[in-house]
Amino acid sequence: MRILVINGPNMNLLGSRQPEIYGSATLADIEANLVASFPDVDFAFIQSNYEGAIIDAIQTTDADAIVLNAAAYTHTSLAIADAVAAVDTPVIEVHLSNIYAREEIRRRSLIAPVCRGSICGFGPKVYELAVAACL
Amino acid sequence: MRILVINGPNMNLLGSRQPEIYGSATLADIEANLVASFPDVDFAFIQSNYEGAIIDAIQTTDADAIVLNAAAYTHTSLAIADAVAAVDTPVIEVHLSNIYAREEIRRRSLIAPVCRGSICGFGPKVYELAVAACL
Amino acid sequence: MRILVINGPNMNLLGSRQPEIYGSATLADIEANLVASFPDVDFAFIQSNYEGAIIDAIQTTDADAIVLNAAAYTHTSLAIADAVAAVDTPVIEVHLSNIYAREEIRRRSLIAPVCRGSICGFGPKVYELAVAACL
Amino acid sequence: MRILVINGPNMNLLGSRQPEIYGSATLADIEANLVASFPDVDFAFIQSNYEGAIIDAIQTTDADAIVLNAAAYTHTSLAIADAVAAVDTPVIEVHLSNIYAREEIRRRSLIAPVCRGSICGFGPKVYELAVAACL
Amino acid sequence: MRILVINGPNMNLLGSRQPEIYGSATLADIEANLVASFPDVDFAFIQSNYEGAIIDAIQTTDADAIVLNAAAYTHTSLAIADAVAAVDTPVIEVHLSNIYAREEIRRRSLIAPVCRGSICGFGPKVYELAVAACL
Amino acid sequence: MRILVINGPNMNLLGSRQPEIYGSATLADIEANLVASFPDVDFAFIQSNYEGAIIDAIQTTDADAIVLNAAAYTHTSLAIADAVAAVDTPVIEVHLSNIYAREEIRRRSLIAPVCRGSICGFGPKVYELAVAACL
Amino acid sequence: MRILVINGPNMNLLGSRQPEIYGSATLADIEANLVASFPDVDFAFIQSNYEGAIIDAIQTTDADAIVLNAAAYTHTSLAIADAVAAVDTPVIEVHLSNIYAREEIRRRSLIAPVCRGSICGFGPKVYELAVAACL
Amino acid sequence: MRILVINGPNMNLLGSRQPEIYGSATLADIEANLVASFPDVDFAFIQSNYEGAIIDAIQTTDADAIVLNAAAYTHTSLAIADAVAAVDTPVIEVHLSNIYAREEIRRRSLIAPVCRGSICGFGPKVYELAVAACL
Amino acid sequence: MRILVINGPNMNLLGSRQPEIYGSATLADIEANLVASFPDVDFAFIQSNYEGAIIDAIQTTDADAIVLNAAAYTHTSLAIADAVAAVDTPVIEVHLSNIYAREEIRRRSLIAPVCRGSICGFGPKVYELAVAACL
Amino acid sequence: MRILVINGPNMNLLGSRQPEIYGSATLADIEANLVASFPDVDFAFIQSNYEGAIIDAIQTTDADAIVLNAAAYTHTSLAIADAVAAVDTPVIEVHLSNIYAREEIRRRSLIAPVCRGSICGFGPKVYELAVAACL
Amino acid sequence: MRILVINGPNMNLLGSRQPEIYGSATLADIEANLVASFPDVDFAFIQSNYEGAIIDAIQTTDADAIVLNAAAYTHTSLAIADAVAAVDTPVIEVHLSNIYAREEIRRRSLIAPVCRGSICGFGPKVYELAVAACL
Amino acid sequence: MRILVINGPNMNLLGSRQPEIYGSATLADIEANLVASFPDVDFAFIQSNYEGAIIDAIQTTDADAIVLNAAAYTHTSLAIADAVAAVDTPVIEVHLSNIYAREEIRRRSLIAPVCRGSICGFGPKVYELAVAACL
Repeated sequence: MRILVINGPNMNLLGSRQPEIYGSATLADIEANLVASFPDVDFAFIQSNYEGAIIDAIQTTDADAIVLNAAAYTHTSLAIADAVAAVDTPVIEVHLSNIYAREEIRRRSLIAPVCRGSICGFGPKVYELAVAACL
Repeated sequence: MRILVINGPNMNLLGSRQPEIYGSATLADIEANLVASFPDVDFAFIQSNYEGAIIDAIQTTDADAIVLNAAAYTHTSLAIADAVAAVDTPVIEVHLSNIYAREEIRRRSLIAPVCRGSICGFGPKVYELAVAACL
Repeated sequence: MRILVINGPNMNLLGSRQPEIYGSATLADIEANLVASFPDVDFAFIQSNYEGAIIDAIQTTDADAIVLNAAAYTHTSLAIADAVAAVDTPVIEVHLSNIYAREEIRRRSLIAPVCRGSICGFGPKVYELAVAACL
Repeated sequence: MRILVINGPNMNLLGSRQPEIYGSATLADIEANLVASFPDVDFAFIQSNYEGAIIDAIQTTDADAIVLNAAAYTHTSLAIADAVAAVDTPVIEVHLSNIYAREEIRRRSLIAPVCRGSICGFGPKVYELAVAACL
Repeated sequence: MRILVINGPNMNLLGSRQPEIYGSATLADIEANLVASFPDVDFAFIQSNYEGAIIDAIQTTDADAIVLNAAAYTHTSLAIADAVAAVDTPVIEVHLSNIYAREEIRRRSLIAPVCRGSICGFGPKVYELAVAACL
Repeated sequence: MRILVINGPNMNLLGSRQPEIYGSATLADIEANLVASFPDVDFAFIQSNYEGAIIDAIQTTDADAIVLNAAAYTHTSLAIADAVAAVDTPVIEVHLSNIYAREEIRRRSLIAPVCRGSICGFGPKVYELAVAACL
Repeated sequence: MRILVINGPNMNLLGSRQPEIYGSATLADIEANLVASFPDVDFAFIQSNYEGAIIDAIQTTDADAIVLNAAAYTHTSLAIADAVAAVDTPVIEVHLSNIYAREEIRRRSLIAPVCRGSICGFGPKVYELAVAACL
Repeated sequence: MRILVINGPNMNLLGSRQPEIYGSATLADIEANLVASFPDVDFAFIQSNYEGAIIDAIQTTDADAIVLNAAAYTHTSLAIADAVAAVDTPVIEVHLSNIYAREEIRRRSLIAPVCRGSICGFGPKVYELAVAACL
Repeated sequence: MRILVINGPNMNLLGSRQPEIYGSATLADIEANLVASFPDVDFAFIQSNYEGAIIDAIQTTDADAIVLNAAAYTHTSLAIADAVAAVDTPVIEVHLSNIYAREEIRRRSLIAPVCRGSICGFGPKVYELAVAACL
Repeated sequence: MRILVINGPNMNLLGSRQPEIYGSATLADIEANLVASFPDVDFAFIQSNYEGAIIDAIQTTDADAIVLNAAAYTHTSLAIADAVAAVDTPVIEVHLSNIYAREEIRRRSLIAPVCRGSICGFGPKVYELAVAACL
Repeated sequence: MRILVINGPNMNLLGSRQPEIYGSATLADIEANLVASFPDVDFAFIQSNYEGAIIDAIQTTDADAIVLNAAAYTHTSLAIADAVAAVDTPVIEVHLSNIYAREEIRRRSLIAPVCRGSICGFGPKVYELAVAACL
Repeated sequence: MRILVINGPNMNLLGSRQPEIYGSATLADIEANLVASFPDVDFAFIQSNYEGAIIDAIQTTDADAIVLNAAAYTHTSLAIADAVAAVDTPVIEVHLSNIYAREEIRRRSLIAPVCRGSICGFGPKVYELAVAACL
């Protein structure tokens, strides 16, 4: 099984960015952990600060499923939501923090309505749960 | 490990209630499946149509974690949210359907902000993922 | 034909409660009048101040139709609305007063969208009209 | 007893207009059925696409009661509401469909607050129930 | 000087309609009083329940000024506002009651922004003041 | 091919009404131009300030398509929208000005959702484009 | 008859302040004109930039009526509105410009609901009309 | 004098629940203190997590006054508000914390409008003040 | 103990102003009663219609506590709220009437969030309760 | 004449993406059809998923006109709107579907107010109509 | 060059008032620092808790520019905004804290739209920057 | 000291784009002026129409401070705001025009809450003031 893990803007700063919210694990840690935890899954990883690059990735992947942490674009990008809706690949939304316990603008996900499901609030564990949900 | 699984109003009708949204598995099926999938977990199950009974259950349990599908009370019960906030037991919110893809009133969870995390949209599998999140 | 008539919170005070709005007939008067007016109908009557009890009643009845005056829960109970949507029994919403002529919060019925139809504003006569609508 | 039945804009298309919402009975069918069902009532029938014509009818009738299906004007005509409030004739609001289960703009009736009562959602039967409410 | 006085829907009922709000003077009384009070003004009077008729009147008059009590259309008719904006004749808005002391929907005038000025709350006297404002 | 061109309230003033917004062409100019530009089309033209008359025209035409400039009724008439939805004749919405660049109340069209398509902002040319869209 | 004319903040700049909106007449011109136009009226004039001073003036006057142009306080001062409501002296609201044709915040008067009536949009003439309304 | 003190959902956890907001006194402490402070008052105490049970208590008490801390139901229960409005017993609303200094949803009390008065923000002392208000 | 009692705009009219809402006691009566009821408290009393004067009083007092009835400024004065927040003196908000049972604009207190607590609805007794809360 | 046709995010999926909404024609089909239909026009075509790339294209083109289908960016990109406003090249907005008949977020175009005009709802034909509007 | 520096309500408490937000410098410190930093500027300084006094100061100054920290009046005083708009003296808005990072009510400045420019968030340095902006 | 000056979408058009709003200075003029005015500062300049490129620049700079004119992204980019919050480099927001005096959508800055301070409305001078604020 092939799974594409997409991380959106500023996720490359994970570990140093507001660790009281996002924890001290880096994105590389999270990716390494996924590879170790699911040896039978063929992972691809993409991180980009560009909305367009995330859309390109969603459109062109040949993965069986996508785990998507769109970060701030979750709340502003109708274009990413359209990309998710336009492809057949199932997409699972994840967030490290519980976005529903944060400020108002982070409580509305434009992307959730077109995803297969949504997992948030468990820190880096959300990636593992999302992969488990794909299996 | 002890886990209390609480299901809110109308969840006892699962399987017969709007199967195009909620699937054909009954609540008994889901509970049996959890017991079989996690043999090392000591489960307790409660379903109630009473807001007060759900609050009582949250307050009095000695479980290590609670998996909570508050159903319609998710969107109207500040009192259940207060109970979740008042106890030390971690609570994980689950929903069978993707509530963010449904009508407006179901897009706002009063309970999410005080839960450890939230999982929705994968059908009965959300219960398994929630238990996995507790381990 | 069997019809279950459910009355919600504070309806047991009918006759003494704000008679300038709700009239002087008691709930017992209304129920007796229904029995007398429709001798061929097999009536059951329930009044409860508990949201959960009303949901239980909707779920478990074997009546052919339900006449439901959910009183204040009309405006706050998504759980009762879910119960109405979950069963096959047709439900008819009634209100003694014209709820659309009252304060803002009473102008929005959460239950109306899932009912077969709605009748309000004719005082105790709304129950008779609702039964007539079932025949 | 004399009853005036007023039907508003597009009601003349009943039977051919969106039958999945409004049913296949024509307005003539409904009127004929009323005459047959209530042989002791002296009916007058008016249908108009003009807001002004409906106001004129409400002002000038000498009927004992008015059954009013204002159709789309229900939601936009404060002037018809003023006419209802200005006359002594009791007015009963009816709608074939359950307007509270439809799109947002159809969930607010400007006319309901000044009517004696309101009946909606039972299809053509709403006219009969309204006449019954007048007797 | 020629002045056209236009009265909108239900103003023909003045005197009998909710006299506690609108007073006991009839529209004929008001018109007669204007003629008597301003002998040098050449008055024309129109009352209609039709939005279209009021627009026609505004478009076709050769009066030097219009005194307009659009009644309920004040709050719903963008088309009358467009007519006022489209002609060169100055239009003065009047209301018998203080519309800003009434229910929410009557506090917003669509027509006021395109009128020369607005006078409300003095009962029948508003017509005299409006004519005085034209002189 | 037969096409009915309907123009709503105040469109008869075209040319003299706010020419900085609507241009100096009269409605007669526009109609003459259409006849000249599309010699194979059988045109009918209606202009009315009455909402009811526009509904009548939509209901009773035997044209193959309708080009509709509802002017101010675009934003206030649910009844015209219902008429458009009720008939099989395709309706194309046009506006001379770019309504989305104007004041808030003119940015919401009640009629657009039930039309085949919408064209605005090109001045009198919108009529030609609408006819071209019908061919 | 004694009439107190109160002018609120920045009205002392009249004539020099945005003359395209407020005209070139000064407050002294307006006051002099009133005295000349109504020789039988005993006028008192107050202008203040202090909300508290305007409240004091309303509370302590022994005039038979008050003509009040509260300027910007019209839209923000509930305290002046309370003063108007607290005294028996009738108060008439005036504005030089048509406040309903201006920006949103100037379209809502907190003071209008408790005034006898309201006159706006005729420039300095509003003061004369207000005095005429008192007679 | 007999006074019924009703405490709503999660108030039984007082002392252990979020002591930084609600203080360390338990409900038993508060009740014992009331009995000691007002030896001449005959107290009854009820705590329940059930909305229905609180309504029952309000309806059936024969106390001379009710001190009501409805906790979370303060903000969601129109049914409790209806019960308060339906009985003659005066009801005094209390809250330990200053609800107006907390999150938005806790700033609106559905119950306050039908209570005799409201006291909040002084911790356990609010109960004493409420009893003092009854004397 | 020294307590400063501040009364805001129009409170000097107490007794004559809308006695059906505010009662017939004058402010002098209330102040005299406080002095008599709490002989050990050293009272100072201020009433002003000026927002600035109330801020000055809050800033400069050397009282141990302030009882503040800001009247209409309760709902519009962020500056008084800032003054309350800026000083160490505890401030207790009082209102004679139950502000939450009145019109919308009186249901939001800008001052409540920064006060120690809030008491309303018991008429003149609120002052006594507030002093009791300080002891 | 040179015309630049810009298509925004996900438009490259046309034909396979939700064909029930967008039809089965691919973007290549549409472009080929334009070239064939308007042999005298010199077309350039750009499709990009990047907001920045669309802005670059608008800024740097030397076309005589731009036909712009900004897709999802229509509703979220103030930056594209600024680019349109900043250049002299006339821009015509097109949408395949009737965006005003879709979900709320798609009913507001940020770009429409600065475009020459807007055409939507006719499927691929909107491109032809837009080019016709340029000629 | 003459510059008038106006500070609004509670600014006299600077240094002691919430130093974690506003810093420990007093208003006297800030004024002394300005005089020292800009020896060629002729400064005048005013601080008042009265809205009216600030308006008076704006109206009557003969300074070449005004630096205005209206504090809480920034968000509630349309009258000060009117004063700024009414005079020719350029006004520069300053705030010590970043008002856009604070609670909702402090994010909207009524005064900003009529000022030359706005500077906030740099603590006492904002005054220096404002003077620099005047030079 | 090193300062990075970032300019967002369409700022490259400065000088030719709407000079009545943005002035006639080009971006090159502004940059040259900064270099000349602050000879001791080591400047880097970036302009991009890509949201992602701006985020990249914020994340990767080793400057001591950032002066950021995010242009239209100010109002739509939560991702740039997240980047500002994620790095330690202080960021100062600037705008040439007074954004609070423009249309509604430009009055809310998503970026302001996470910046050190904000300066707007002085034209090209805002860049100089921002650099001065860094020193």
